[in-house]
Amino acid sequence: TEDIYPTRQGDPERWINRADPVVWSEWTPDAPISQRQAESFNRDGFLVLRDLFSTDEVQALIDRAAHLRVEGQNLNREDVVTEPDSAEVRTIFRLETQDPLMMRLACDRRLAGIAQFLLGDDVYVHQSRLNYKSGFTGKEFYWHSDFETWHAEDGMPRMRAVSASLLLTDNRAHNGALMLMPGSQNTYVSCSGATPRDNHKRSLQAQKVGTPSPESLDRLARKHGITDAEGPTGTLILFDSNTIHGSNGNITPEPRSNAFFVYNAVSNRLQDPFAADRPRPDFLARRGVPEPIELHTGRLV
Amino acid sequence: TEDIYPTRQGDPERWINRADPVVWSEWTPDAPISQRQAESFNRDGFLVLRDLFSTDEVQALIDRAAHLRVEGQNLNREDVVTEPDSAEVRTIFRLETQDPLMMRLACDRRLAGIAQFLLGDDVYVHQSRLNYKSGFTGKEFYWHSDFETWHAEDGMPRMRAVSASLLLTDNRAHNGALMLMPGSQNTYVSCSGATPRDNHKRSLQAQKVGTPSPESLDRLARKHGITDAEGPTGTLILFDSNTIHGSNGNITPEPRSNAFFVYNAVSNRLQDPFAADRPRPDFLARRGVPEPIELHTGRLV
Repeated sequence: TEDIYPTRQGDPERWINRADPVVWSEWTPDAPISQRQAESFNRDGFLVLRDLFSTDEVQALIDRAAHLRVEGQNLNREDVVTEPDSAEVRTIFRLETQDPLMMRLACDRRLAGIAQFLLGDDVYVHQSRLNYKSGFTGKEFYWHSDFETWHAEDGMPRMRAVSASLLLTDNRAHNGALMLMPGSQNTYVSCSGATPRDNHKRSLQAQKVGTPSPESLDRLARKHGITDAEGPTGTLILFDSNTIHGSNGNITPEPRSNAFFVYNAVSNRLQDPFAADRPRPDFLARRGVPEPIELHTGRLV
Repeated sequence: TEDIYPTRQGDPERWINRADPVVWSEWTPDAPISQRQAESFNRDGFLVLRDLFSTDEVQALIDRAAHLRVEGQNLNREDVVTEPDSAEVRTIFRLETQDPLMMRLACDRRLAGIAQFLLGDDVYVHQSRLNYKSGFTGKEFYWHSDFETWHAEDGMPRMRAVSASLLLTDNRAHNGALMLMPGSQNTYVSCSGATPRDNHKRSLQAQKVGTPSPESLDRLARKHGITDAEGPTGTLILFDSNTIHGSNGNITPEPRSNAFFVYNAVSNRLQDPFAADRPRPDFLARRGVPEPIELHTGRLV
């Protein structure tokens, strides 16, 4: 099949228009978001939703996350990233497989149900993780489109995936809130260069390959502006696979934490990577026949 | 004379109550700021003033700053800091001595006049600089009190100095706006450790000595909170010498620039350093008999 989103082929960087819808469903009154929210996601490539979860539910998730981080030593080592200079757990991958409450969350109508609606298909979890960054020294995460990496290194064919980040701490611009360029999801920046072997071992630290050039980022920022996805604990941020995003470092004492799930349409299952020797490991990109999520409704706890 | 603000004496870190006023004058109707602004500075240790300068004045300063950065190669080398990997000028010290317009700005009633009022004395420029940080890669500046350094390394005896930063670019939390802890000016964090010889050669890159411990910063942030000094080009930020402040890095494409003047009361002239072998060079801390600024009123241009 033809690659409509070529990248890292040794050609100069160029901009390609998105060939896929952003919202794949017609809105109806029984959709899990309002018509206005659906239009907003379609226009901006992201949506910030507050007050979807009760205080009790959020507290239960915070407690469980803290527990998982403490128990991190007992988890599969491949799934856990610790701080370079301590045993403190920074990331736990395959989050929903580690804990029943996190599995329940991954299947919740407020996450997976919205993803189903946006993608117009059954969905499965392509990647998931618990993120925790302590205060004072949190490093920045540079601008990128997730889809570019998933396409190049995981073989995701089309833009039919959405990320859901549930904030487990308050997040403000000054403690490194997610920044997004609204509308950037409609431009695919085909990157120059090529993928080094086992690039993911480096890119989890700091992404070098597959990021737009400063010139492209400058043009995109002028065209679209930059929005800070700020919100209190419990806020849900949904963003399209191709929306350009990044986050600044954080010298404030306040840590940042979130539960993060990437939903992919089952019809968009992974192929061979489009620009890498071999696919990334399973904890970064679930391969094989996708198993559609069965939605759960009602309270988590 | 007794050192009422001891620091870096090899003792453990401790908190000392401020022994000096924050606002040294009684407010009267002919003061250069309103009574409410004076109270706000007294309470918070800083003040953000918009619309003090006309668009024409701000544009003239921006143009002059750009000119100075281009001409930076012709200035005294000690006064100029360039980027590590290029000849791009990042900082120009002794700003008012480099250019007549900058001298006019340093003497303006809207800067030096407010400083005179706040400090209840004639003032002189202790340190000044033009700051410029390009976008994408701007590094963070960690939490500190300026006074701690000026006391330890420059021999400034009392808390009777104020900094004035005139923004020459828009500054928002997400492009590394100055962050301040309102009220922190009333606590002096006496730091552990000692000053290494020629510490300023390192501390201009990243401050290690003379910063409060994470535990102190965490307590201070909980007690006082953190305010982002955001504002459009032309905004003036005034802050007390002991207000704890810092700034995050900046991955946005937007550069940051300001004209920065530290005013010290002439009665507060420098002595021998309180915690260093020898004083820092003149471009960082003007020594000798202070020459009081003569105020200029009216438009800059």
